[in-house]
Amino acid sequence: MPETEAVTAALLIIGNEILSGRTQDANLQYIAKGLGDIGVRLREVRVIPDVDEVIVETLNTCRAAYDYVFTTGGIGPTHDDITATAVARAFGLRIERNAQAVAIMDAQYEHGQLNEARLKMADMPVGSELVLNPVSGAPGFRVENVYVMAGVPGIMRAMFDEIKNELRGGPPMLSRAVTTNLPEGAIAEGLGALQERYPNIDIGSYPFYRKRCFGVSLVLRGIDAEVLARATTEALALVESLGGEGAEESLEDGD
Amino acid sequence: MPETEAVTAALLIIGNEILSGRTQDANLQYIAKGLGDIGVRLREVRVIPDVDEVIVETLNTCRAAYDYVFTTGGIGPTHDDITATAVARAFGLRIERNAQAVAIMDAQYEHGQLNEARLKMADMPVGSELVLNPVSGAPGFRVENVYVMAGVPGIMRAMFDEIKNELRGGPPMLSRAVTTNLPEGAIAEGLGALQERYPNIDIGSYPFYRKRCFGVSLVLRGIDAEVLARATTEALALVESLGGEGAEESLEDGD
Repeated sequence: MPETEAVTAALLIIGNEILSGRTQDANLQYIAKGLGDIGVRLREVRVIPDVDEVIVETLNTCRAAYDYVFTTGGIGPTHDDITATAVARAFGLRIERNAQAVAIMDAQYEHGQLNEARLKMADMPVGSELVLNPVSGAPGFRVENVYVMAGVPGIMRAMFDEIKNELRGGPPMLSRAVTTNLPEGAIAEGLGALQERYPNIDIGSYPFYRKRCFGVSLVLRGIDAEVLARATTEALALVESLGGEGAEESLEDGD
Repeated sequence: MPETEAVTAALLIIGNEILSGRTQDANLQYIAKGLGDIGVRLREVRVIPDVDEVIVETLNTCRAAYDYVFTTGGIGPTHDDITATAVARAFGLRIERNAQAVAIMDAQYEHGQLNEARLKMADMPVGSELVLNPVSGAPGFRVENVYVMAGVPGIMRAMFDEIKNELRGGPPMLSRAVTTNLPEGAIAEGLGALQERYPNIDIGSYPFYRKRCFGVSLVLRGIDAEVLARATTEALALVESLGGEGAEESLEDGD
């Protein structure tokens, strides 16, 4: 699909706890959907460990390749929270204690509670803009096209909602979905032909398997609503012509 | 932590549906835990789209950097299932119709149902070994250190369970976890000192936030059970010395 104007993004999920399987990631889907809402294409996600040189190298690769990079994780007060210093190193910037962040945290904590470990959360690359944290105070930050957010899902979501409106998206990706009880193998040939007739619509086929039954969701995505509608109608007709049952999923379910 | 003998792996999750947010990934954690069980360290996960050159480049980077690479997604019968051809291109191998895979599928499908689209699932790089699929028949495959599996979670799990025992792991990573009601900021200084005293134990601090309450899981990981036990005892003592409540999570919960 031609996407010369597409605005692109990558997400870096930073955290040993995801790679060890201890924690189920709960951030990817929220960010992916949120970016889709505003016409930003999430092109790649990388889950990487809390290792300085890995963060630096991955960030430098991704910030050069995509319009936006989002990171989650590693901005707390403990010894394993190394994202801020790694981001500074990636940009060749000094770390400084951000006065605005200190002020926010000073107002948040009771007298005497804002210790050195917590103040570490205000240490950011020079020139960072804050990403506000309406849940627990300590902010994330932005340097150029890189947004650094917390890993705790409740906090990450609040931070992402804060910045979402300042992001510049491209034409929003529209999507529709058709579910059928036909197996993929029965529909594959006709679906391939449909894809060829609609080169500007991206047609995905996603089999599911529940309770020993197979089914398929056909997801059609594109930026032209009218062309998308025609392709969707044809997908439904294809399913029915093959003797299957087909139904369009509500737009809210699809993406 | 010194890990000269560590056996490492990367996971490539191939699928537009994850990047669009339409589908929540359900494979990463299963594979991560399974690898942990046998002493293989999952070092990196990449979620990438169904785009040939992206799959080829990512696979070639990862198969050179890690002992094992696992992929999920893109091996079905439809036009958007391009993983097998991309893997062949990455290795510079021809695609051929694997006779053993055809035989398995021939036994699986009723007469006349094994059409050309389904037979495409038997097209694999020359010399592939099959990864058996006890759920729905059509197998995945292995080329050198790369294991190619289905994306549908129920099928992926069955495939992974099939191959798990043939993987060669390193010393298993042991882990213990202490949960406390103390906030991270209160425990950070003592925890950093504990980490310095135990350089061979990897101590992670994972805050959680539920119902407007914060808590922290301290996860200690290492390959020496005795050293790990001592560090865990010290972590519990640290929490209690700071006036917090601490409890060791059961080993099943941790990783």
